[in-house]
Amino acid sequence: MCKLFNWLNNKKGKLSIIGLGPGKYIFRTLQAEYALKKADWLYGYYSYINRLLLNKKKIYSDNHFEVTRAHEAIINATNGNRVAIVSGGDSGIFAMSAVVCEEIDQGPAAWRNLYIEIIPGVTAMLAVAAACGAPLGNDFCAISISDNFKPWETIIRRLDIAAKGGFIIALYNPVSNNRPWQLYAAFTIIRRHLSHNTIVIFGRAVGRKNEKIIFTTLANSPPDWVDMSTLVIIGSEKTRIVKRNNGQPPLIYSSRIIL
Amino acid sequence: MCKLFNWLNNKKGKLSIIGLGPGKYIFRTLQAEYALKKADWLYGYYSYINRLLLNKKKIYSDNHFEVTRAHEAIINATNGNRVAIVSGGDSGIFAMSAVVCEEIDQGPAAWRNLYIEIIPGVTAMLAVAAACGAPLGNDFCAISISDNFKPWETIIRRLDIAAKGGFIIALYNPVSNNRPWQLYAAFTIIRRHLSHNTIVIFGRAVGRKNEKIIFTTLANSPPDWVDMSTLVIIGSEKTRIVKRNNGQPPLIYSSRIIL
Repeated sequence: MCKLFNWLNNKKGKLSIIGLGPGKYIFRTLQAEYALKKADWLYGYYSYINRLLLNKKKIYSDNHFEVTRAHEAIINATNGNRVAIVSGGDSGIFAMSAVVCEEIDQGPAAWRNLYIEIIPGVTAMLAVAAACGAPLGNDFCAISISDNFKPWETIIRRLDIAAKGGFIIALYNPVSNNRPWQLYAAFTIIRRHLSHNTIVIFGRAVGRKNEKIIFTTLANSPPDWVDMSTLVIIGSEKTRIVKRNNGQPPLIYSSRIIL
Repeated sequence: MCKLFNWLNNKKGKLSIIGLGPGKYIFRTLQAEYALKKADWLYGYYSYINRLLLNKKKIYSDNHFEVTRAHEAIINATNGNRVAIVSGGDSGIFAMSAVVCEEIDQGPAAWRNLYIEIIPGVTAMLAVAAACGAPLGNDFCAISISDNFKPWETIIRRLDIAAKGGFIIALYNPVSNNRPWQLYAAFTIIRRHLSHNTIVIFGRAVGRKNEKIIFTTLANSPPDWVDMSTLVIIGSEKTRIVKRNNGQPPLIYSSRIIL
């Protein structure tokens, strides 16, 4: 009975949506490692798939093809295969989980039978924060400033109220080839509410060989190397720098105490 | 030369601040596993330390003694020991990293020599989100509604503007023995701006044996079992439910598309 159940279960397709964490495999959870091994097919963006040295059927696609990727992976899984879609960081934060859910929501009824598992990961803002201290140590917002799927007016309004409300702000998708100016506009909005001495952190390719993490203040223009692999953290008035000795980088943290 | 360097390095104390992820060890990163093994002393809240079956010197303390815990762990490490402070989830989100940074900021200059590593983990909101779909699929805020360290007026104002701004809201520290009413008050504030049909998720002890995840709407009062191990996600108007077949729980997601 149990064996029969297992056999039936194995014949059934399965779709895993896996957050790989940032960069190197040591940032992955054991659960993500296990799910990767179980999958026969891997779907994802080039650079995420390329990090995986596993001997699998790999379907690469560009960042603009999330819906097609989700669609094809769902069909492959409903055909009885063990399929995984991988995201860098966490798949639920501006990544593939919501795309897959929306496809199933709008797709044929049969897709609702599909067995789905979603495996969380360390999202970029947590990794950048840990690399420089505890800048997310108090209430914070995460905002994608890509206006591909929402009006720029909505983004402006959210940046405005987040800064006014004293939230620490994590900006995802700050700059792409098609969106070169949004980050500069975002800084202009935020400067209306926060002191120009507010600490700002830029973390690029965190956890990878070419990791680059710098901090500056809101007075300065964002560096020109900011791209889609960069996560920006804008501190609050409670974000401070602790200078270190022994050549260690400073610790940046946001106090949990607000008087 | 290399051996001498290693010896000197080992003699130097080290403080690791480790996010264990939620519950079971499979949610931990490989980096967290490695750092746990390297430490000789573990400091943390009872229930986090109790999950670790490692043969280490363990110093338990209650949730109200974060500052004492940080202080003692720093002194132990500056004396040359390899010390780890553990947090559930991610140590940078309403947890120990900011407490340690603040202690070093205010402590004696010698503490700034201490070698510190901070290891990120899967924070509760990511785990709860993954367990039910992708409710954090668009811009979101994380707010601790504990008024132990910030005025209740600040919390009210942030809840108000987060709901008004269309953010999905993750509430940390919703209820404790000393703070039984704040969550109900928070719901009253949020109901001013959001439809009573807005989806709300309560995730308790996620990733552990006694995990409990339910969803309801904002019209309903929070369940009476909500406690400090519970994470609350309040959706936006873009948060939807996808009913499933085969006895599977529904998928809850927030669309990335805002028109």
